[in-house]
Amino acid sequence: MRLTALAGGVGAAKLLSGIVRVSPPEKLTVIVNTGDDFQCMGLHISPDLDTVTYTLAGIENPATGWGIRDDSFHCLERLRELGADTWFQLGDRDLATHIFRTHRLQAGERLSEIVSAAARANGIQTRILPMTDSFVPTLVHTDEGTLEFQDYFVRRKCAPVVRGFDFKDIQAAMPASGVLESIRQAKAVIVCPSNPFISIGPILNVPGVREALQTTRARILAVSPIVAGEALKGPAANMMRQLGLEVSAFGVASLYRDFLDVFVIDSADGDLRAPIEALGIQVHTVNTIMDSTASRIALAEPVLDLLS
Amino acid sequence: MRLTALAGGVGAAKLLSGIVRVSPPEKLTVIVNTGDDFQCMGLHISPDLDTVTYTLAGIENPATGWGIRDDSFHCLERLRELGADTWFQLGDRDLATHIFRTHRLQAGERLSEIVSAAARANGIQTRILPMTDSFVPTLVHTDEGTLEFQDYFVRRKCAPVVRGFDFKDIQAAMPASGVLESIRQAKAVIVCPSNPFISIGPILNVPGVREALQTTRARILAVSPIVAGEALKGPAANMMRQLGLEVSAFGVASLYRDFLDVFVIDSADGDLRAPIEALGIQVHTVNTIMDSTASRIALAEPVLDLLS
Repeated sequence: MRLTALAGGVGAAKLLSGIVRVSPPEKLTVIVNTGDDFQCMGLHISPDLDTVTYTLAGIENPATGWGIRDDSFHCLERLRELGADTWFQLGDRDLATHIFRTHRLQAGERLSEIVSAAARANGIQTRILPMTDSFVPTLVHTDEGTLEFQDYFVRRKCAPVVRGFDFKDIQAAMPASGVLESIRQAKAVIVCPSNPFISIGPILNVPGVREALQTTRARILAVSPIVAGEALKGPAANMMRQLGLEVSAFGVASLYRDFLDVFVIDSADGDLRAPIEALGIQVHTVNTIMDSTASRIALAEPVLDLLS
Repeated sequence: MRLTALAGGVGAAKLLSGIVRVSPPEKLTVIVNTGDDFQCMGLHISPDLDTVTYTLAGIENPATGWGIRDDSFHCLERLRELGADTWFQLGDRDLATHIFRTHRLQAGERLSEIVSAAARANGIQTRILPMTDSFVPTLVHTDEGTLEFQDYFVRRKCAPVVRGFDFKDIQAAMPASGVLESIRQAKAVIVCPSNPFISIGPILNVPGVREALQTTRARILAVSPIVAGEALKGPAANMMRQLGLEVSAFGVASLYRDFLDVFVIDSADGDLRAPIEALGIQVHTVNTIMDSTASRIALAEPVLDLLS
């Protein structure tokens, strides 16, 4: 069964690592958000691509969700001694990815080629695609003005009240080669439990992607990133509240209702089954908390069953 | 006593580390070769500036002469795993310097400002100046054609026969701020025991430098990099031979005769005293081999005595 997944960072990577344990990894294509890509110390950083790549390679840092397991921070320590403004954590091994990517981008290579080379070098059989080869950074419109995503997320710790989002220059961006085809030709599409605004949102805004989801014959399933009114990780719940949406799996389902066939929600949210089904979406309840390898597999199995 | 030194890499750094132990480091200005600067993985590398900086900071790797003591190579190992062409050794702590420099150069800062910031951050009181803020890479004309310096030096291991040198775009380069002034206003100038072609040569070819040396009132002393017909390190002897020069301290003296007052040669080369004095250059013989901290000081002391 050919599968395609839309993915943000940590939550997505956990589910995907479960999926490749119970179905053939080479049949899976992952389309990854690059809206939160940014430059740090002249290096091009792609947080979600790296989290997905490291997790599928089995070298992710389970304590933080980002970076490489047991990494050292000698370069970062020296950068601090030199007086550099190093607000972003750069592990020594992680840094290799950023240098490799930045150097090849500067040499004119496409991001998708670089991601593919890094995946191969990491022994990953799954196809990892950036949503686009263009740089389309997320802009967060807030009550304090428009902020770049990392500025909102890291420096301001999500304190400003969100009014909306934009993805700079995305109207002119093309989906990376394989993105639309993988949605159209898949047997099923999985929307990972990622932030609907800043992880899945950018992917849906790449020209052609939302239309491909609306028109594909693939069965489309999403896993809710909201459990019992709270985000499993990150600012999704806060954003929904500030944007006037219901902070629940129902609120997420309403954002995906134009293309979603099946919504997997947490057992804690059983009371939302009827309202979500009323949107024309099939509902499945299961434990969606992935706090162990076993629980990733325990979530991946029913997801695959629902799609086969 | 205000001192100015012209410096290449390891040999120069050893002598300078002796000098700052026996005279006030803040009275010393070091003008450093940047002819062998190059790009590696998109990073701007300045080998001689780094060797001088690390040595004066007391963090140099004594085993190799380049890089930082007890550095790790985790980033480089990962770069290799990713399939990057990493022929240059990049330690994790060393890498911080390259990232810091590259990022600030890309932001439009001058190399000399960056070098100065790095020196301050390393607690160095000596003023370190690149010879120029411009990129003037050394080109080696050989019997196999013209090669970039790192290509000749690292990849070809100095095998091609040298016919001459050029420093790309150097005619249009300006000396870095302070370079000419420090030569004109010093009480004395020390030409370190560095390769006369590819370490001191580029400095002498920066417009205005050779004239400043010829006309300054400062007493000018050089320490021979050639002892008993052999270079202490690197390809200097080979280059002299291939260019048809006498491979000796005399050969080096003849390259500097238009500005040199005093030449410090090794005790092993006492027979060269008369021929060098015949060039109008005062000669002093001493042990010039710096294989310990004590021997660096033992060389620095007579050098300073000769200049005071």
